[in-house]
Amino acid sequence: MSSDRPLILVTNDDGISAKGIRSLASAMEPFGEIVVIAPDSAQSGMGHAITINHPLRLESSYLFGENVAYACSGTPVDCVKLGIYEVLHKKPDLVVSGINHGANTSTNVLYSGTMSAAVEGAMEGIPSIGFSLCSFDSNADFGVSKQVVNTVVREVLSKGLPKEICLNVNIPDIAMDDFKGVKVCRQAHAFWEDRFDKRFDQFGKPYYWLTGDFYDQDKSENTDLYWIERGYASIVPTQFDMTAYKAMKELENWNL
Amino acid sequence: MSSDRPLILVTNDDGISAKGIRSLASAMEPFGEIVVIAPDSAQSGMGHAITINHPLRLESSYLFGENVAYACSGTPVDCVKLGIYEVLHKKPDLVVSGINHGANTSTNVLYSGTMSAAVEGAMEGIPSIGFSLCSFDSNADFGVSKQVVNTVVREVLSKGLPKEICLNVNIPDIAMDDFKGVKVCRQAHAFWEDRFDKRFDQFGKPYYWLTGDFYDQDKSENTDLYWIERGYASIVPTQFDMTAYKAMKELENWNL
Repeated sequence: MSSDRPLILVTNDDGISAKGIRSLASAMEPFGEIVVIAPDSAQSGMGHAITINHPLRLESSYLFGENVAYACSGTPVDCVKLGIYEVLHKKPDLVVSGINHGANTSTNVLYSGTMSAAVEGAMEGIPSIGFSLCSFDSNADFGVSKQVVNTVVREVLSKGLPKEICLNVNIPDIAMDDFKGVKVCRQAHAFWEDRFDKRFDQFGKPYYWLTGDFYDQDKSENTDLYWIERGYASIVPTQFDMTAYKAMKELENWNL
Repeated sequence: MSSDRPLILVTNDDGISAKGIRSLASAMEPFGEIVVIAPDSAQSGMGHAITINHPLRLESSYLFGENVAYACSGTPVDCVKLGIYEVLHKKPDLVVSGINHGANTSTNVLYSGTMSAAVEGAMEGIPSIGFSLCSFDSNADFGVSKQVVNTVVREVLSKGLPKEICLNVNIPDIAMDDFKGVKVCRQAHAFWEDRFDKRFDQFGKPYYWLTGDFYDQDKSENTDLYWIERGYASIVPTQFDMTAYKAMKELENWNL
């Protein structure tokens, strides 16, 4: 690898063979040297999980041509850690994660392996971005996504990111002609209404599939859901400090 | 179950047979009706992971005597969801998670299954608390912890919690005589220095164990690590809105 171009770690949570990470890797090639380290299978919904109770495997992958690529048996966060400490042996200049097949708007940031990889990058002090397309289609069209990736990565590489912050970028599933632009905004306070699909196995014992519907209970403006619905890509600057500073005052009156 | 006492969902990430959840359940009994739904095996480091690619199992457990208890094949967050939607069929008055064998101070809140269960409770609009003892000993002494649980739960049940906030409570591993009290504070910005222990299997192929050391790079006062070190239990009010509001302004100058 040449040393003057940015070194870019590419990961995702849909697994190394997903169309989304192929689109992301190809969009990143003009920006620097890319190294792909991605889960060997789908890791959607893994959040910030790390693998500590069993060992991890890394297998070289041919899927990205000349570029160095590894499939990892662990989670997206494991991929970032292994990438830094066992593959690159140094911190890359940028971590990009995605392009996720499905939105990671609103509170989905907490469940999202794609975004947790970016958050892990931020915890390592590396500028990091998670990209998600609002379509679960495994053969989705990543045309608009590539344009958004290009714009956002260009700005991040030239201006850097605020300390301890990564970006959560969501892209609407629309045609290029309908795409309106990019908006910086906040995470909507919207939630899943969970349900379980209860079934019975061949022994008559129950098992459960998690399902449900996502509702935008947050009707305010300038949220990620607000802009996505209006044809914009959303960028939510995302932090790993989960302290509710405003609530600290209220608790100071407690009888502790 | 009588209907006038608070209904309390008890979970953890160390698994249903851990000493910590037994201590928590017994500390909760004076406060209301308890229902235990906890992972059937250790789920440490699972963060906010949910199980969506394979089905979940629930098995009745005798470990909590007269109290309703279930072991779940999934993650701590799965336990909260199954608890609400398949066991209780309504929202409990309180979710408590722990007592974790090991600290969940600082950025460990992101990796912690214990805390993710509490965060999930907050996303459901339920007052929720994660408790962690700063000792990994599976036979740890939960004496100080029980006193802290008692104090914090009493206050939460009488005063409620701010909207969309849960509590991250960490308890120092010290004798009762050395225990100083409880402090409301913020999450320290401290991080793991990761390492991988690389070994080779019987075929000569490598595998990796995640390990490392945790350092308190954040030397400021009024963090959870600051108070734990001084003999106090820490309470960090914790939110699931990860938007970096201060960073939004900076990004508004970008050429997007």
